[in-house]
Amino acid sequence: MRMLYHTNLSPFCRKVRMVMKEKGIDFELVCENPWDRKLDLFALNPAGELPILVEDDGTVVSGAYAICEYLEEAYPQITLLGTTLAERAEVRRLVDWFDHKFDYEVTKNILFEKVFKNYLGGGQPNSAMIRQGTSQMLYHLDYVGYLARERYFLAGENLTLADIAAASHLSALDYLGDVPWEYNPGAHTWYALLKSRPSMRCILSERVRGVRPPVYYEDPDF
Amino acid sequence: MRMLYHTNLSPFCRKVRMVMKEKGIDFELVCENPWDRKLDLFALNPAGELPILVEDDGTVVSGAYAICEYLEEAYPQITLLGTTLAERAEVRRLVDWFDHKFDYEVTKNILFEKVFKNYLGGGQPNSAMIRQGTSQMLYHLDYVGYLARERYFLAGENLTLADIAAASHLSALDYLGDVPWEYNPGAHTWYALLKSRPSMRCILSERVRGVRPPVYYEDPDF
Repeated sequence: MRMLYHTNLSPFCRKVRMVMKEKGIDFELVCENPWDRKLDLFALNPAGELPILVEDDGTVVSGAYAICEYLEEAYPQITLLGTTLAERAEVRRLVDWFDHKFDYEVTKNILFEKVFKNYLGGGQPNSAMIRQGTSQMLYHLDYVGYLARERYFLAGENLTLADIAAASHLSALDYLGDVPWEYNPGAHTWYALLKSRPSMRCILSERVRGVRPPVYYEDPDF
Repeated sequence: MRMLYHTNLSPFCRKVRMVMKEKGIDFELVCENPWDRKLDLFALNPAGELPILVEDDGTVVSGAYAICEYLEEAYPQITLLGTTLAERAEVRRLVDWFDHKFDYEVTKNILFEKVFKNYLGGGQPNSAMIRQGTSQMLYHLDYVGYLARERYFLAGENLTLADIAAASHLSALDYLGDVPWEYNPGAHTWYALLKSRPSMRCILSERVRGVRPPVYYEDPDF
């Protein structure tokens, strides 16, 4: 059986899981903690990072970028990148926005400080960084709201990898209760739409030991 | 004429320039400073970041990830990603290694602190971060040396986007004299090979005002 190694609350793992569900690709999920630094994880991916996809024939694909592009090439029946060159460029621009810009300005500041830093033995969360991440999130929510109002989904009329990347980061932060949805109604409406996708349901039903999400976390009518 | 907006010393801009040269795609180069925050740059790319490619027909492609994948789809005659699914997965794993892992652990700590922080009015360089970046670079050089010894180029027998991504980051740091090439002879030999590519020559001949590179910077026999 095709295996996907993931870790809880990682936006990059959430992204790959949603892509596989949207494409109807079956897989078995294996939860690993990268901070355990297990040798067999490094044997699969020398970076020691997740997600890692292992196909039935033994093909190993490491990292969300390589996996998402691989899935699009290997299973093209349902596309999440769009069909024309211009559509695909726009989807990838937005994927990059969330996986680089949003990750660097928001996710790393909040999720790393509040959760992963502790696992890695990095000491107390840095509250100044958390405040900076929370403050920087606001203009990203405005941008999500603006795109969703103009286009319905972030890159156009259909769900794409852009929506999945954005929802992966925001859902991980939402687990910590750190997304001020009331700040932008357009972003709120778009996220309600994403929450109702079956591809997101099983991700939202998971719990991390010791951290309880807000009551509205799973509810599409939040 | 096709236009590429870039900024000096950015590894992501260097990557796209090398890809276009290797593929034999003509373009006009326009140098912009993202820290000037010009409105027409934001009109092209709402992230206000570079590189940005503008095709003759007006198609705008923003960001190194979207541009490199776009170029591979639009101009497939010379591939820099490989042909089989497994080859392409390996190239993308390594591109991600340099554009995420190396960028976060090394490039940002050195290049941002020494050069871009000043342009952005961020104050004095943080010497602890520069030391951390320099120290973390060593295991990456070991990995480059290991791959080059096993495979000749980083992802296999042919030059790919993996080599170009790695050389883009390392060449920007080398401009500052911050790469200890003597540390790993295998990485040194691989970089000499990259330096001799015509696609890298015009990048290495450029100078940034106020910063002089080391004497060996352009020399393939360094």
